[in-house]
Amino acid sequence: MHSIPQYQEFIESYIRDQHILKSPQNLYEPVHYIINLGGKRMRPLLTLMSAEVFNADYREALPAALAVEMFHNFSLVHDDIMDDAPLRRGHETVHEKWNTNTAILSGDAMLILAYRYFEQYEPPVFRDLAKLFSKTAIEVCEGQQLDVDFETREDVTIPEYLRMIEYKTAVLVGAAMKMGAIIAETSKENCDLIYDFGLNLGLAFQLQDDYLDAFGDPETFGKQVGGDIIENKKTYLYLKAMEFSKAEQAQQLTHLYSVHPADSSDKIESVKKIFEESGASAATGEAIQAYTLRAFDTLAKMEIASDKRQMLENFGKKLMQRNV
Amino acid sequence: MHSIPQYQEFIESYIRDQHILKSPQNLYEPVHYIINLGGKRMRPLLTLMSAEVFNADYREALPAALAVEMFHNFSLVHDDIMDDAPLRRGHETVHEKWNTNTAILSGDAMLILAYRYFEQYEPPVFRDLAKLFSKTAIEVCEGQQLDVDFETREDVTIPEYLRMIEYKTAVLVGAAMKMGAIIAETSKENCDLIYDFGLNLGLAFQLQDDYLDAFGDPETFGKQVGGDIIENKKTYLYLKAMEFSKAEQAQQLTHLYSVHPADSSDKIESVKKIFEESGASAATGEAIQAYTLRAFDTLAKMEIASDKRQMLENFGKKLMQRNV
Repeated sequence: MHSIPQYQEFIESYIRDQHILKSPQNLYEPVHYIINLGGKRMRPLLTLMSAEVFNADYREALPAALAVEMFHNFSLVHDDIMDDAPLRRGHETVHEKWNTNTAILSGDAMLILAYRYFEQYEPPVFRDLAKLFSKTAIEVCEGQQLDVDFETREDVTIPEYLRMIEYKTAVLVGAAMKMGAIIAETSKENCDLIYDFGLNLGLAFQLQDDYLDAFGDPETFGKQVGGDIIENKKTYLYLKAMEFSKAEQAQQLTHLYSVHPADSSDKIESVKKIFEESGASAATGEAIQAYTLRAFDTLAKMEIASDKRQMLENFGKKLMQRNV
Repeated sequence: MHSIPQYQEFIESYIRDQHILKSPQNLYEPVHYIINLGGKRMRPLLTLMSAEVFNADYREALPAALAVEMFHNFSLVHDDIMDDAPLRRGHETVHEKWNTNTAILSGDAMLILAYRYFEQYEPPVFRDLAKLFSKTAIEVCEGQQLDVDFETREDVTIPEYLRMIEYKTAVLVGAAMKMGAIIAETSKENCDLIYDFGLNLGLAFQLQDDYLDAFGDPETFGKQVGGDIIENKKTYLYLKAMEFSKAEQAQQLTHLYSVHPADSSDKIESVKKIFEESGASAATGEAIQAYTLRAFDTLAKMEIASDKRQMLENFGKKLMQRNV
């Protein structure tokens, strides 16, 4: 097994070795740009780690890992168009740096390129990887659509919200890990268990993201604290607060989530107070804990050496402490 | 073997049997809408026909045929955004009927759905189909990018133009036919020959489209005659006219291709006169003929029963007479 920084370097080095900058330049330059903006390479790293957990060489998993990273970047490019986002990882988004048409077409190319990385595997593994990839990719599209739909809906339920973050975020984490297991040709049971581990960890991570967006430390969170509140984004915290609140408090929260004040600091404080007083922040903490434990429970069922089980658990803990 | 209207009905019926309208509705309704706008189903029809030419049952080829049709419609939805086109097959385009974000995301879903149809084949056939599909899909993206690039370039050469229409249009015709051959598990030689047949027929068809856009019969052409001239589109006719023209005539053509008069009838007549007098229209006719003959030459090399060879040749002739 390798360390997390080692896996990250393997991925960076593998990306550097790809000949992405082909002709026509206007198609491939944006692909090269976005894939080289960096990030923590969390998803491809999980593919490599999972392959090694099931006794394959991480090098066998590099093409699948890059497919996952390419797909993730495809979804960022197209989502950034839809959200009209100016920045990604502190740099201009593709549609800002070039234009929307370029971002659409280069994104399309990235989705196709992702599939092509699987061609380096033999037919049975190729088919298993491509099937899992397609299933995951369509779920990510569905999750993105649900997220868009929820913006204009006032009656989103907690199960619907969980389904949305599962599809939009968690399934790709599960799939990234399952790909490593498929490449290692481990048992179907292990493939399904590592998928569930990734899925539940992904859900816990996303719920923690909701929580930290309101209650995180501005020094370490990385994004603007209160960003979801400013944008009136109906996260788990908001939905739980609406569920737990009495009529008056619910009305106040609904009002706060209908305004866009120039100075948002009062609004943020008021919303956070309701999140705390209603019990929503405690309930969110419990949900994070529950999904994390569910992830660790699947580890117990996995037929792997105990040092590897320990290693996955340590990774999960570090991830949830945001120390990765 | 079946007749063309029979193949078309097989495809329509197969599309009707798909459960496309799943949840979330806002993702799948546009998919259902565009795939049911009709059209001649030329590409999927070729997949079925090719499967039968190589002695497979057309039913085996239906999933691959639908993959081709789904991909074609994906490219229409995203291209229509890029071209800001209001109409497709006489109906509102997806981004007009819904909005751009919906058209981006539903298009993405269609590209993924296309891959999923291949999952109905066994691993070796699955891999061959998916590999051919990915290669073709990325070429179509490259062709679309070249087309966009050419709009603002004044130095496009004939070989570059031919490469553009090959990628943007002809490769998918070749791939549609090769998929039928792959499913029939015929020889690699036959697979490559039927691809070349489709590719060259596709090139001939696209060049004829350029020709008919200027010189076609308004009653039968289906699109507005002179449309390319109105939009200053640098087609094969234009590039050949620039190649053949003396300085004065070339200057006149360059000028005509820089203006957008409210009434375009004089402009269209002047441009057509240059196309004729320069020899560009005759040269275009010769190129159409050359690609058509090249397509028929590949048929001669194919190891198939002579009635099937004859049937493919008849199809090619009908297509080029625009009687399909």
